[in-house]
Amino acid sequence: MQINDLLENTGEWLKGQGEDADIVISSRARLARNLVQFPFISRATQAQRRRLEELLRDTITTACADANLSYFPLAEASALDSRVLMERHLISRELAEGKGPRGVAISPDETISVMVNEEDHLRMQAIHSGLDLKNTWEEISGIDNALEAHLNYAFSPKLGYLTACPTNVGTGLRVSVMLHLPGMVITKQIEKAFEAVTKMNLAVRGLYGEGTQAHGDFYQISNQITLGRSEEELLESVGAVVPALVTYERMARQTLLKENRPTVEDRVFRSLGVLQNARIISSQEVLLHLSSLRMGINLGLISEIKPEVVNELFILAQPAHLQKLEGRELGEHGRDIARAGFMRRQLGMN
Amino acid sequence: MQINDLLENTGEWLKGQGEDADIVISSRARLARNLVQFPFISRATQAQRRRLEELLRDTITTACADANLSYFPLAEASALDSRVLMERHLISRELAEGKGPRGVAISPDETISVMVNEEDHLRMQAIHSGLDLKNTWEEISGIDNALEAHLNYAFSPKLGYLTACPTNVGTGLRVSVMLHLPGMVITKQIEKAFEAVTKMNLAVRGLYGEGTQAHGDFYQISNQITLGRSEEELLESVGAVVPALVTYERMARQTLLKENRPTVEDRVFRSLGVLQNARIISSQEVLLHLSSLRMGINLGLISEIKPEVVNELFILAQPAHLQKLEGRELGEHGRDIARAGFMRRQLGMN
Repeated sequence: MQINDLLENTGEWLKGQGEDADIVISSRARLARNLVQFPFISRATQAQRRRLEELLRDTITTACADANLSYFPLAEASALDSRVLMERHLISRELAEGKGPRGVAISPDETISVMVNEEDHLRMQAIHSGLDLKNTWEEISGIDNALEAHLNYAFSPKLGYLTACPTNVGTGLRVSVMLHLPGMVITKQIEKAFEAVTKMNLAVRGLYGEGTQAHGDFYQISNQITLGRSEEELLESVGAVVPALVTYERMARQTLLKENRPTVEDRVFRSLGVLQNARIISSQEVLLHLSSLRMGINLGLISEIKPEVVNELFILAQPAHLQKLEGRELGEHGRDIARAGFMRRQLGMN
Repeated sequence: MQINDLLENTGEWLKGQGEDADIVISSRARLARNLVQFPFISRATQAQRRRLEELLRDTITTACADANLSYFPLAEASALDSRVLMERHLISRELAEGKGPRGVAISPDETISVMVNEEDHLRMQAIHSGLDLKNTWEEISGIDNALEAHLNYAFSPKLGYLTACPTNVGTGLRVSVMLHLPGMVITKQIEKAFEAVTKMNLAVRGLYGEGTQAHGDFYQISNQITLGRSEEELLESVGAVVPALVTYERMARQTLLKENRPTVEDRVFRSLGVLQNARIISSQEVLLHLSSLRMGINLGLISEIKPEVVNELFILAQPAHLQKLEGRELGEHGRDIARAGFMRRQLGMN
């Protein structure tokens, strides 16, 4: 598999399937692991990183043969290819923009990715469409077990798995869900809801993880704590809050429709109008309008556009994907023009 | 003729015909006249105003029989009807919102209107589509001569025609052209051009005359001075500046298209997208988008919408016209919803 092949298909997690998929975009479980016989990445020499990459690459492909993972060494990859992987949520910004021996193994449907030489020796994630924490956890746990049979993980009986950053020590597990909450944003309930979520020791983040802003009404909820809790407890803590947020969001949308239908329709159709007509548009602005469009489709206001088309446009509208689709490198202004043209074609305009 | 009949047709000056009609919306000539035997309106009693209205109404209909003018007494008219006349530029805001005996005589094609008991006893205007100052002047001059044959105008051999406000003393003539100058606004040439225009003793005003702001890139250029100049000199002074502004505007548009076509197209098509999709829209916002649309049509970027349709929408989108079209009185929010629906239907959407 080549990185370009990824663009031919939509990742499983973007298919808009699964429980509460109108509001829960995806469920994700991520494990951090390190090997006993190597120092943490930040202290490893180039030679050690190289040996780590070789060892882990071989182990991943043999131990997880069932998962049919393809390994992409990133030291050799172009900046554009790395950015494509990042935009697809298959690697972190740190790995994309990092240096030296590092890479990622990806399953054909993009549900599994295993990063090598990120902050930890191994960062593996499973990501599923909709609310599906249990299966997501079981899938990545299977990968973890398969690898553990061949690798000597750094593990303390007292603390659990040892990681480069103390916040990951213990289970090394981060469970997260990506939610689309435009209704709560419009009705101004979002801050209050997130205060409650934060009090439950959960973190709220934007579309691209830690330190990023929430754009287009997308929010990631994840566990803050990984130490002193079992994996099941962590799953439970994130899983417990999601149904409440889904209910609130549904109520907010219905209240809006009932009490202020023209305002909701105005927002949704103006976004459609901009996406179908703009000649220059930034990825940031596209995100906002796609968010409105997604809400409009889920509310039944727009029927001629399929939700999975919109889900995919979120990814394809981003700078690296856009350049791949156009088949050439483009500056910001050129991308904004190309993006507008791409949106028009995808949304049925000439 | 009833006021409702006006809505069945487009005024001649909105047909988008005549010289330079892509940039010069209309040419207008207005005369102020007062009768010797009555005090100025501000000093006239109710009884005097009533007698003035009766006298002028009879004289207008008999003396100008060829022009086939219909007289609308405004003391009895609804606020909505008065506002319709104002939105069609047939009467001033002062007359629309005034009190007591007053009215207006209008020709079937709306090129001529004669206001009775405005600031002066008589305010008569002719308005033509495109750049057509000479014919506009001759038409209103004909009406003026016909009336003068039956009326005793207040006239001083030294000063000329006497008017309520000293700024109109002399010829009592105001000549104006309404220009659409989006290109010069975008290229930021407009202020400099207007500085030059002002130095030539001409005034620059917005869409609804004195004291109003320019909206949607429409500007009215008119003579400041009416005393000590002949009518021909005044016509000449306004007429001389228009070709230059038309040339500058054409150059600005071509420069924009050549150097920044995507930016121009983006502006034009986003406006089209908003007008075709919004569910709530103010008259102010409509004006801005119709202005872009009008430029887009004149630049050949949009071919499926006719310029006269857009010209008419400028009038029909306004509050009183909208309520007439909807057949009921509406509050602001109701109008904004109805206006959005009207725009969608007029621009080929459901």
